[in-house]
Amino acid sequence: MSKQILVLPGDGIGPEIVAEAVKVLQLANEKYQLGFVLSYDELGGAAVDKYGVPLADETLERARAADAILLGAVGGPKWDAIDPAIRPERGLLKIRSQLGLFGNLRPALLYPQLAEASTLKPEVVAGLDILIVRELTGGIYFGAPRESRLLANGERMAYDTLPYSESEIRRIAKVGFDMARVRGKKLCSVDKANVLASSQLWRAVVEEVAKDYPDVELSHMYVDNAAMQLVRAPKQFDVIVTDNMFGDILSDEASMLTGSIGMLPSASLDADNKGMYEPCHGSAPDIAGKGIANPLATILSVSMMLRYSFGQIEAANAIEQAVSKVLDQGLRTGDIWSDGCRKVGTVEMGDAVVAAL
Amino acid sequence: MSKQILVLPGDGIGPEIVAEAVKVLQLANEKYQLGFVLSYDELGGAAVDKYGVPLADETLERARAADAILLGAVGGPKWDAIDPAIRPERGLLKIRSQLGLFGNLRPALLYPQLAEASTLKPEVVAGLDILIVRELTGGIYFGAPRESRLLANGERMAYDTLPYSESEIRRIAKVGFDMARVRGKKLCSVDKANVLASSQLWRAVVEEVAKDYPDVELSHMYVDNAAMQLVRAPKQFDVIVTDNMFGDILSDEASMLTGSIGMLPSASLDADNKGMYEPCHGSAPDIAGKGIANPLATILSVSMMLRYSFGQIEAANAIEQAVSKVLDQGLRTGDIWSDGCRKVGTVEMGDAVVAAL
Ligand SMILES: CC(C)[C@H](C(=O)O)[C@@H](O)C(=O)O
Ligand SMILES: CC(C)[C@H](C(=O)O)[C@@H](O)C(=O)O
Repeated sequence: MSKQILVLPGDGIGPEIVAEAVKVLQLANEKYQLGFVLSYDELGGAAVDKYGVPLADETLERARAADAILLGAVGGPKWDAIDPAIRPERGLLKIRSQLGLFGNLRPALLYPQLAEASTLKPEVVAGLDILIVRELTGGIYFGAPRESRLLANGERMAYDTLPYSESEIRRIAKVGFDMARVRGKKLCSVDKANVLASSQLWRAVVEEVAKDYPDVELSHMYVDNAAMQLVRAPKQFDVIVTDNMFGDILSDEASMLTGSIGMLPSASLDADNKGMYEPCHGSAPDIAGKGIANPLATILSVSMMLRYSFGQIEAANAIEQAVSKVLDQGLRTGDIWSDGCRKVGTVEMGDAVVAAL
Repeated sequence: MSKQILVLPGDGIGPEIVAEAVKVLQLANEKYQLGFVLSYDELGGAAVDKYGVPLADETLERARAADAILLGAVGGPKWDAIDPAIRPERGLLKIRSQLGLFGNLRPALLYPQLAEASTLKPEVVAGLDILIVRELTGGIYFGAPRESRLLANGERMAYDTLPYSESEIRRIAKVGFDMARVRGKKLCSVDKANVLASSQLWRAVVEEVAKDYPDVELSHMYVDNAAMQLVRAPKQFDVIVTDNMFGDILSDEASMLTGSIGMLPSASLDADNKGMYEPCHGSAPDIAGKGIANPLATILSVSMMLRYSFGQIEAANAIEQAVSKVLDQGLRTGDIWSDGCRKVGTVEMGDAVVAAL
């Protein structure tokens, strides 16, 4: 039974890092007889250039038909000045929303081989392993109404709406609890319930879902405190579940604690674990085309794909081990390089993972 | 000409730390003949206990009549279970909004004597001196409509509104530029203009205000990136200006970079520089009544009061120098204590600052 994988290289370093991840994916495909069939399309700026919009209808249909999607990254200065309605990010937001990819998993994992890369003291981050579960299709990102208009006095004003329904909160809370259950059994729900109506409902619904997970220890934290605690004592966290905007902010903060955002993959899942997989980092236009970008986050996104969309735990683990092995061998792209290691380019790094697999 | 200072000790450690700050304020009052007349009232949980509401009308009137307000901190577990409408934080939000205290200054300053306290590597934070300018009376904190209700299908939903008008943005942007002008001449405006309508207006208005400040270098940064950059390379920032919610999150993150949030004061100013001054830290109910809380953030809030509301630069500097001197002497409360220093209590620390002044 064949499985369709849609590959969206995107912009900037996207095509380079995706090419390496595809090598790994193809090898896993053969080795574990996964029956994957790959096809390619465009998203973001590349789609603007090809189709005139950052997500073409035909691409969306292909994405719907696929069993999983591998994405590079989108955006870049080339498209900074265009009509905001067709900016590259709009394509990303639209594919998330149209495919119902509400469950965004963003691990912040410190590789022991890269402990020095963190700006935090080694004892604060050694062994760091947090999973941020971010709600990805609701909240202020998609809330209506949103508008920019003139007031009676001639002044401009603009507003956004932050809505959450019980069912939206319930399903992401479940993802949080399910993840905590197979990890450290601790879930911290982050909100701003001392100020926001939506957060008050968030907290109430998370409490209700908790009844089905007596084995998971639940705590609540205000978002400002969470931003502090991630700096103060990040290892206190196991799984964090939070809304779309807070998750955007906290997952970037958490990823930077590791000092090596070039290593961090992500998954965005729908209700049936169909998913889109992409590195946490952006399209890094400044180093695009130079062959120096770190492909490991994208390669690890393939591992997440095998794990979450296809249940291929053995193959997923094998890829993670191969990545760990090349780090042990001392191979480093520029972003994670330190004294005594061997600096390699994107392709050499990809080849090394393939060889290790 | 006498000046009225309203003192609101608040909850938890509030009364203890405020008592020490008042000693310093009274000494400065005599020494520099400032003509301050102090009166006291309650805010937060203490006000709930006394008046049944977290901010009584008569307290609000006293606050309006005062020339400046010194606040301890509000909140605690004692009032966690009460009606959300009269929770202690509501009093804080109401006094900010009713007095029009839209300009919130939150410095994140690393004291060289306390460099070890940070969880970040010394080279990353040595000399750190950031000022966060947070909009404090608008945005999603006060936006209407906000509501919790039942949908037609019987499910609950709740929403908040994030509005900003041109004039609200303009006045806080000016505060940001004015502060940058007398500091490092760099202003970073933080928003989420790739997603939010309110952020798009924010960015446009900040650009307009920038025309009046050609001597200040303006940059824009998305909030998720800002949360990352604060961890990666915090010293790249001089002044950050941002909205109410982003400012809440980023100022807490930035303050924790110093490792000594017990040292950080804040000011909340209206259009005429009338202000409310309070430590950045909370009411710390767990250590309340033990005489071990750090009063320095509150003492430094007095210094900010003298500087911003009364233009008493000499007196303000003298207080800062006195604080620096007691740190040089090796005196530390528990929160900032390290090996080789002398651990002191709240009162002893306050007395030491008074002696140094
Ligand atoms: C590009 C942007 C719209 C996006 C987001 O805010 O969700 C990005 O920051 C992310 O976190 O994937
Ligand atoms: C107590 C709370 C409502 C408040 C806020 O969110 O503004 C606090 O976190 C702060 O930053 O002063």
